Amino acid sequence: MATIMDGKALAAEIDMRTANRIQRLADQGITPGLVVILVGKDPASQIYVRNKERRAKKLGIHSIVRNLPETISEKELIKIIQEYNEDPTVHAILVQLPLPEQINEFHVTMAISPTKDVDGFNPFNLGKLLINKTDQTPIACTPQGIMSFFKKYQINLDGKKAVMVGRSTIVGKPMAALLTNANATVTIAHSHTHHLSELTREADILIVAIGVAHYIKAEDVKPGAVVIDVGMDRDSNGKLVGDVDFESVEKKASYITPVPKGVGPMTITTLISQTVTMAEWSSEKNG
Amino acid sequence: MATIMDGKALAAEIDMRTANRIQRLADQGITPGLVVILVGKDPASQIYVRNKERRAKKLGIHSIVRNLPETISEKELIKIIQEYNEDPTVHAILVQLPLPEQINEFHVTMAISPTKDVDGFNPFNLGKLLINKTDQTPIACTPQGIMSFFKKYQINLDGKKAVMVGRSTIVGKPMAALLTNANATVTIAHSHTHHLSELTREADILIVAIGVAHYIKAEDVKPGAVVIDVGMDRDSNGKLVGDVDFESVEKKASYITPVPKGVGPMTITTLISQTVTMAEWSSEKNG
Repeated sequence: MATIMDGKALAAEIDMRTANRIQRLADQGITPGLVVILVGKDPASQIYVRNKERRAKKLGIHSIVRNLPETISEKELIKIIQEYNEDPTVHAILVQLPLPEQINEFHVTMAISPTKDVDGFNPFNLGKLLINKTDQTPIACTPQGIMSFFKKYQINLDGKKAVMVGRSTIVGKPMAALLTNANATVTIAHSHTHHLSELTREADILIVAIGVAHYIKAEDVKPGAVVIDVGMDRDSNGKLVGDVDFESVEKKASYITPVPKGVGPMTITTLISQTVTMAEWSSEKNG
Repeated sequence: MATIMDGKALAAEIDMRTANRIQRLADQGITPGLVVILVGKDPASQIYVRNKERRAKKLGIHSIVRNLPETISEKELIKIIQEYNEDPTVHAILVQLPLPEQINEFHVTMAISPTKDVDGFNPFNLGKLLINKTDQTPIACTPQGIMSFFKKYQINLDGKKAVMVGRSTIVGKPMAALLTNANATVTIAHSHTHHLSELTREADILIVAIGVAHYIKAEDVKPGAVVIDVGMDRDSNGKLVGDVDFESVEKKASYITPVPKGVGPMTITTLISQTVTMAEWSSEKNG
């Protein structure tokens, strides 16, 4: 039976360290500032944003949720982002995705100053991550949260075969870069990959972000593999489940993240922690 | 026996198209401008720079080689780069690597304006490549030249297993991004990779940038693979050879690039062609 990597417990542990760091900043008169921009009224996005805000406030971050109308133009949205770019009380800006059709997500990503890009989706930050020059560089929160699992559970990545299933900007691509920088031998698989199961069966480290409930079964996993499940899917009963068939894979893997209480809680924790890190960078620069 | 992919012939073909594009720009009163900055007197670098200049001039590009003393400070070098960033007659800036010890290559890469970064090493351009948003984005010349081979020889990459041996900023990382964007399933191998031969033997597309003469032998290659050799090594007789043992691998692969006259000539051709593309972008912007 695999060791279950407890995202809720690890998140609480990191939150405690973050709270201490926020206290140290407070002693210098600095309050980390996070702006979350929410366009429209997508119910799922509203829940995510509310959770982010609640956790941020609880830890003592100055968190602003800026609600904007569904009909806002790209130009108007970018103008608002630019105002936050200039605002010295704001250290981190996040635009909740998805955005309405009239707005190009890439243009929005490009508009956020790289120094305030807490999601790490700006090409400048992605490029620095790619070439392992990550000094003062925000990194996508979900992959960074996954790296915290490896650290906590002392999983050695050097020379290991890692397979990342999924090539999104949010998870797959930054995750692959982090793994390569940690000296793993990384393969990125995706919707065009042939014989996926053959590939995943060779992985010492298997990270799955497909978006299909229970897609990865025990037969797709190498005995003793470390399995990270990024999925947030609903099964036929509407229950929250992952991309990995936890029940069968748990018997074969050495480590596994559950859904819920695996990768999910780590993403918000990393977002908050990175907001604090960005406030620290800005205090170093001004101090 | 493999089809030998003739880099010299393909380079000549592309140069001819480039010459026509330069003519069309000339009709609009535009001469593409390339600045090559050479710090110090490294003999190999001097040869590379001279070759670049000769090819650029031959095709009708305004090419400036700026020789700077070995002892120049990073600050002074960056100041010179910034002047070229501002110069509207310069469309492309290249700083020949390696640089002397007192200069941080990454700082120099960052100083070149992304719009003039003909080598594509600026993190902003690398990040755009990573997420496949390459509109008006210069891309590293060696990987881009390799993509021209795939196009010329109609090699389908979609769903193919590609293995990139080497993870440099100059070749491996941008190459892996290009292959992933072309829907290949890409693995990046490097010095920490275990059992490299097992991995390369599975590759439909094998790209080798190791820097060790004849490292890849026939037994490391899948029958029918497409093999691209980025190596520029010297054998024990001082002869220029590749990372691939051409003689034995040629019998097993379906396509192979030789050394010399493979990837090498394509890199300079791509550099020139990309300089012209950047002049076209700037003319679109101003036109």
